[in-house]
Amino acid sequence: MNYRMIAYVLGRIGLIEAALLAVPLVVALLYGETALLTAWLVPIAVLILLGLAVGLRTPKDTAIYAREGLVVVAAAWVLLSVFGAVPFVLSGDIPSCVDAFFETVSGFTTTGSSILTDVEALHRSTAFWRSFTHWVGGMGVLVFAMAVLPMGDGRAMHLMRAEVPGPTVDKISSKLRDTAKILYGIYFVMTVAETLLLLAGGMPLYDALINAFGSAGTGGFSHLGASIGQYNNLYYEMVIGVFILLFGINFNIYYLLLLRHVKDAFRSEELRVYLGIVAASVVAIALNISRLYGGFVHALRYSFFQVASIITTTGFGTADFDQWPTFSRTVLVMLMFCGACAGSTGGGFKVSRLIILLKSSFRDIQRMLHPHAVTTVRFEGKPLDDKTVRGTSIYLTFYMMVFTASVLLLSLDHFDLVTTFTAVTACFNNIGPGLSVVGPMGNFSQFSDPAKLLLSFDMLAGRLELYPMLVLFAPTLWFKRRRPRKL
Amino acid sequence: MNYRMIAYVLGRIGLIEAALLAVPLVVALLYGETALLTAWLVPIAVLILLGLAVGLRTPKDTAIYAREGLVVVAAAWVLLSVFGAVPFVLSGDIPSCVDAFFETVSGFTTTGSSILTDVEALHRSTAFWRSFTHWVGGMGVLVFAMAVLPMGDGRAMHLMRAEVPGPTVDKISSKLRDTAKILYGIYFVMTVAETLLLLAGGMPLYDALINAFGSAGTGGFSHLGASIGQYNNLYYEMVIGVFILLFGINFNIYYLLLLRHVKDAFRSEELRVYLGIVAASVVAIALNISRLYGGFVHALRYSFFQVASIITTTGFGTADFDQWPTFSRTVLVMLMFCGACAGSTGGGFKVSRLIILLKSSFRDIQRMLHPHAVTTVRFEGKPLDDKTVRGTSIYLTFYMMVFTASVLLLSLDHFDLVTTFTAVTACFNNIGPGLSVVGPMGNFSQFSDPAKLLLSFDMLAGRLELYPMLVLFAPTLWFKRRRPRKL
Repeated sequence: MNYRMIAYVLGRIGLIEAALLAVPLVVALLYGETALLTAWLVPIAVLILLGLAVGLRTPKDTAIYAREGLVVVAAAWVLLSVFGAVPFVLSGDIPSCVDAFFETVSGFTTTGSSILTDVEALHRSTAFWRSFTHWVGGMGVLVFAMAVLPMGDGRAMHLMRAEVPGPTVDKISSKLRDTAKILYGIYFVMTVAETLLLLAGGMPLYDALINAFGSAGTGGFSHLGASIGQYNNLYYEMVIGVFILLFGINFNIYYLLLLRHVKDAFRSEELRVYLGIVAASVVAIALNISRLYGGFVHALRYSFFQVASIITTTGFGTADFDQWPTFSRTVLVMLMFCGACAGSTGGGFKVSRLIILLKSSFRDIQRMLHPHAVTTVRFEGKPLDDKTVRGTSIYLTFYMMVFTASVLLLSLDHFDLVTTFTAVTACFNNIGPGLSVVGPMGNFSQFSDPAKLLLSFDMLAGRLELYPMLVLFAPTLWFKRRRPRKL
Repeated sequence: MNYRMIAYVLGRIGLIEAALLAVPLVVALLYGETALLTAWLVPIAVLILLGLAVGLRTPKDTAIYAREGLVVVAAAWVLLSVFGAVPFVLSGDIPSCVDAFFETVSGFTTTGSSILTDVEALHRSTAFWRSFTHWVGGMGVLVFAMAVLPMGDGRAMHLMRAEVPGPTVDKISSKLRDTAKILYGIYFVMTVAETLLLLAGGMPLYDALINAFGSAGTGGFSHLGASIGQYNNLYYEMVIGVFILLFGINFNIYYLLLLRHVKDAFRSEELRVYLGIVAASVVAIALNISRLYGGFVHALRYSFFQVASIITTTGFGTADFDQWPTFSRTVLVMLMFCGACAGSTGGGFKVSRLIILLKSSFRDIQRMLHPHAVTTVRFEGKPLDDKTVRGTSIYLTFYMMVFTASVLLLSLDHFDLVTTFTAVTACFNNIGPGLSVVGPMGNFSQFSDPAKLLLSFDMLAGRLELYPMLVLFAPTLWFKRRRPRKL
């Protein structure tokens, strides 16, 4: 384990966070929140000092292997959240350290679960930072680091693989650094486009930025008590609903569109299945809730927004879906697990993993029934190789292990079964709201401190797709061993 | 598809069921239920006629391949349940055909879920038949057919593989027919032993038989409103609790004990993990409910019985666990999914499948972290081969598919989320009771007819481990096709 190199990369990330924290500092100055200046300046100063201490001199051995990659990513996200939580505590907006940590993890992981009982009591600059963490976490901090820092391709690939969601990582460009720049470029332009469209509809700049950050990262933090529903504005809902769906699509598709490979872009199987699931769910829920909203057409408005918000794991709300019939709530819970496309800013299990699991399983059933027939399975035009299939199966196993263990531990907090189950579902899949106590009109404030830390772990494990967080528990990583251990 | 051979085997199974129905006919005579004689004689006569019509002449082509095996098993279980339901309808004890079918499927699949609101209103002979189906279904009808009918090894293996639960089927003896005889022999002796122990404690013979049938098949039907709890007798609870745990163990272990290979028997990894899970769950729940029962020691009594009843997927009850704290209920729901050992009469996912999934997944993580280390994984002393691992992963995928689709469809019945979720859990894993409306003090009578048929399908899919029931939906099985279909 190359500890020197890990410290170096973490130091660099620290300097990046110091720069990011300067943004809400400017907001504080603009809104005259002078009492909060120290809340921003203290973490900035500490991060610069620590960053310079370990991140200045390039180590002699810059080798990064798979395990260093996993450890760096896990450590970076935990440290980002720790330092990102400081302003909440120092400003007095979230006095409890555990609460502030939970809220910051929820921000960076683009979950959007909140321990705040009154969101509107936040200062302007803290509310801005809270939503800004969504934007930073959506595309990934290490992808950003790759875009702006000098780093060779060999070592960077392990970082990228650990941070970008999905069963496989495609290098858009031959150089990883260019790939990172292209991804952040698309991300930036789409965020600006959404902000402009919201401004065009009459939304104030501050609100437009906060909602664009929440959409782009598929995060879901709002600075309003009733989320997007508080505007009661169909235009805003349409803009945000469409944009969260767009941010849930694999960014490679936008790159293909940029290169004018329009046919290739729309040939994507994952995209078609994703849009198919969205369409089917919107219609099914609208039929189910039509009586609540006076007709199918009016119900479509709420059904569309909520389906888009949940499948992309954003978590914005325009209706209290905890009051919807069992069928609609069941569909929404299933969409929580399904999640968005690989290579997007959305969380969850990912549509592509579902396709891979189903296709390979059906192939194997065919083989069982017709042993002599030739059955080939293709995904996105290429034959599915055994490594990808096996990797997806393993992912499912660990996914269920973490989920089950979390539900079991959280049940010690004595909430009802639906609250316990959906709190883990919402955090682990980076959605935001669950049902019952943690429903769209509720929050996570009532959980005990250990439970909040557990859910923070789940949010990180969900955003980083398990392995970086699980590897922290792998004893073989920390201790030298003599011989291969037999399991 | 060899339809002639399928019909032949089904005809033979029909004759066996006619013989089985003679048992409750005798009970009806003994208890003087003369009004019910036609209820028993009609299905017996029809089965004999149909059985003789198609099961008398051995077809020329007796080939049975994997797909014939799956179809025979699925069709046999559905037909057994249809004819087994006739006496409930004709006797007037369960007038609705759908209800009677649900109850019979629940019996044969050893689920123990009931649509009856008053169990004690049943006639003596119908209550006996209801529990007797548990005993028949526990070890499997086709295993029984193999034991008593002349059938070559080649074709019988496909039947056995489709009916005996677990990721792999071990042939105890070199001849399948002998294997079937040994299994039924052990099963019979253990059932007699339990009956005798219950009689020794003062239980009437009728009750002792019903409870032994329910334990042996890990079924859980009781003829008493409050199940085993109605006796309020610690001795009975201990005998039944220990026996259901014994029936949840792989029967190969008893065979090893018979051969005096005691060391080999206790070296079984699955057995150790199974007993470990039981011990841990009993202690955890007892600690959690100790306040409800005035102390840890007294709580152990209820905790032990319920854990044994749920992990073996029996479903007998001595306490209303729906009233227990969230943690205890969460543990029980997890045990419902875990299930008992492979090769036992218990249902669920099976302990061995869990072990295989976890071990192979951890091996692959090790490989990821230490690409050059040699990591071998062994299960039950043998290295885990890729085919078993892959087969287990596919099983998990289909298991979750059927589960998810069932929950979604059942949610149309408008029950609360916990009822919907645990009704499917309880039926699909062949447990019996769930939580909330279908809790230990509730029943399944309130569901709509389509919902009852859906849950019947789930019980069959759970008992037969998915494939026989899923294959009925495979279009390639019923239609000839020209070229391999690309998925």
